[in-house]
Amino acid sequence: MSTIAPVRPLKRAFNFNAGPAALPLPVLERIREELLDYRGTGMSVMELSHRSLEFEAINTAAEQNLRKLLAIPENYAMIFVQGGGSLQFSSVPQNLALPGKPIDVLHTGAWTAKAIGELKKGFLHNIAASTEAEKFVRVPRQDEIKFSADASYTYLCTNNTIEGTQYHSLPTSAAPLVADMSSDIASRPIDVSKFGLIFAGAQKNLGPSGVTVVIVRNDLAERADKNLPTILQYRTHIKEKSLYHTPPTFAVYVLGLVMEWIAAEGGLAGIQKRNEAKAKLLYDAINSSNGYYRCPVEKSSRSLMNVVFRIGGGNEAVEKEFGKGAASANLVGTPGHRSVGGMRISLYNAVDQDAVAALVAYMREFQRTRG
Amino acid sequence: MSTIAPVRPLKRAFNFNAGPAALPLPVLERIREELLDYRGTGMSVMELSHRSLEFEAINTAAEQNLRKLLAIPENYAMIFVQGGGSLQFSSVPQNLALPGKPIDVLHTGAWTAKAIGELKKGFLHNIAASTEAEKFVRVPRQDEIKFSADASYTYLCTNNTIEGTQYHSLPTSAAPLVADMSSDIASRPIDVSKFGLIFAGAQKNLGPSGVTVVIVRNDLAERADKNLPTILQYRTHIKEKSLYHTPPTFAVYVLGLVMEWIAAEGGLAGIQKRNEAKAKLLYDAINSSNGYYRCPVEKSSRSLMNVVFRIGGGNEAVEKEFGKGAASANLVGTPGHRSVGGMRISLYNAVDQDAVAALVAYMREFQRTRG
Repeated sequence: MSTIAPVRPLKRAFNFNAGPAALPLPVLERIREELLDYRGTGMSVMELSHRSLEFEAINTAAEQNLRKLLAIPENYAMIFVQGGGSLQFSSVPQNLALPGKPIDVLHTGAWTAKAIGELKKGFLHNIAASTEAEKFVRVPRQDEIKFSADASYTYLCTNNTIEGTQYHSLPTSAAPLVADMSSDIASRPIDVSKFGLIFAGAQKNLGPSGVTVVIVRNDLAERADKNLPTILQYRTHIKEKSLYHTPPTFAVYVLGLVMEWIAAEGGLAGIQKRNEAKAKLLYDAINSSNGYYRCPVEKSSRSLMNVVFRIGGGNEAVEKEFGKGAASANLVGTPGHRSVGGMRISLYNAVDQDAVAALVAYMREFQRTRG
Repeated sequence: MSTIAPVRPLKRAFNFNAGPAALPLPVLERIREELLDYRGTGMSVMELSHRSLEFEAINTAAEQNLRKLLAIPENYAMIFVQGGGSLQFSSVPQNLALPGKPIDVLHTGAWTAKAIGELKKGFLHNIAASTEAEKFVRVPRQDEIKFSADASYTYLCTNNTIEGTQYHSLPTSAAPLVADMSSDIASRPIDVSKFGLIFAGAQKNLGPSGVTVVIVRNDLAERADKNLPTILQYRTHIKEKSLYHTPPTFAVYVLGLVMEWIAAEGGLAGIQKRNEAKAKLLYDAINSSNGYYRCPVEKSSRSLMNVVFRIGGGNEAVEKEFGKGAASANLVGTPGHRSVGGMRISLYNAVDQDAVAALVAYMREFQRTRG
């Protein structure tokens, strides 16, 4: 993407926020370039009618490019909706639960806990596996999942942002697999045909907050009771190609630009390689710190997206100092989630190797002077 | 607001879109200026964590400035949510309907029809007034409303974008008044204390699409059954100050800038004057066309926001030609809604007098050459 010259020398932060998170600089530059006049229309993208040819082209291209990147099969719909993962916690069971057939849940942390909270409001469900007793330091193994005989679907969160865990091999399930993929969608190739439904807020790997992607097998979208509010039925948005009501047009536009950027980076295979290298750099630094930095997560479950660690045996004062010092050194967003403490480094697609290298250098220096 | 020099000479369209719609140029310039680096953070607003001090300040200022502009009383909450008016069609009854107490509806067109569609899914309701028999060319008079004895609330749409009607005096109702104010909020001063709840998608007068404003009297927000999905309960967002889950951060930021712009334009009193002058210019042009242009709406119900008219006795070919010629003359968004045809000119806050003058000149020339 071409760019205009920066107005002033640009100091870009090294951004490790957990979402909303870093966006690719070429995407931001393109947005700025087009901000007052989208391709000769004399209007900002924000000023285009969602029924205009220009926006319909943006919407279609964003959908098509996402479908292509994720290799979404023909028998799956892909829709853009609002409300984030938090709305999906109720929308998924409202659309997909079958009478008398429980929802099997693999419980792996704060986000599956939120989903379970919504299931408790009248949906038959079964905690088919939980790693809560181990403080969620790993995701469940296939052999410990206790599936129901006849589940509506099996629910999991592929990457747990707060606990720093990620599935590196997918559980198999007779019932359709439904995944909250908010924090690792488009970070690596996946086989969509193994899922019944995937949802993801855009604000980690796909774009800005305010738009949510739902990928759903066509037959499953037909399960919903038509008495459900129209806007909460997946079929409504499928039928109207995500234009049932006014969409978050600007967020869809930015998501489309991010899809172009991923394609230019070599697609998901290229992105995966990048993400693996970034995570390796950081985990290696942790592992070679003689225990000063310690990742509590079991090796086989460690997330490539959110790397969590404690410092000096979990010394909160030192951790606070680390976060403050990092921010002063232009390393933003290193403190862990307020519910668990420690540090958390989010390494989503748009975070580049230089940022991780800068962080690792800071970590070494911090340990040398304070450790 | 200060600006940077345009990258190239800027041809701004005269934008009469019905929403998403025109935004004030100083707002767009400010967005562009800050796009890569929000106030020295080294990050775009889109890259800020919604838990960061910077975004919390944006969120608080947007809320406070909107509260101030609309003079929202202390006993009302104001929240930013997602899903637009279309989600509110079900959220309002889910939160506010009381057992055995019907919802009184004043039916004035396509948008109240959508709201009624959702009420039909199990909510006791009563069409207390309807102007459907007159093809919605006016809003109901107070004396023709048949209120229920003990309604949960009375529902109306203050401005009907498709039909071009608007309430110029508010009905009085013993039950709390609930208003879909999507298309005329912040276009004139209102007395919020006359309402129980007001909702509005931002994409007409407040900002870009993707964020929805709900203003609700505190006691009414407590009516909701706690078994309703957490994210659909108003009280959730009130308690968390619109940060229950990841908000559409960029849309909230832009809305905040639009609030600053309205304040600089003299607040709602200033905006009302501007809007009245714009509408007068256009209605005068219609009225002085010897019937070539004809507004079907009764004078007392004519909208200042959406001016609808037919051309040459409703000649569709001529109307199509008008729209095409207008677009070529840089006058965007003049065709009426696909469901009713004719022309529709939206005159939201950010449309300026020059745009209306250019349109009126085009109308005169069109009539002279084709009429």
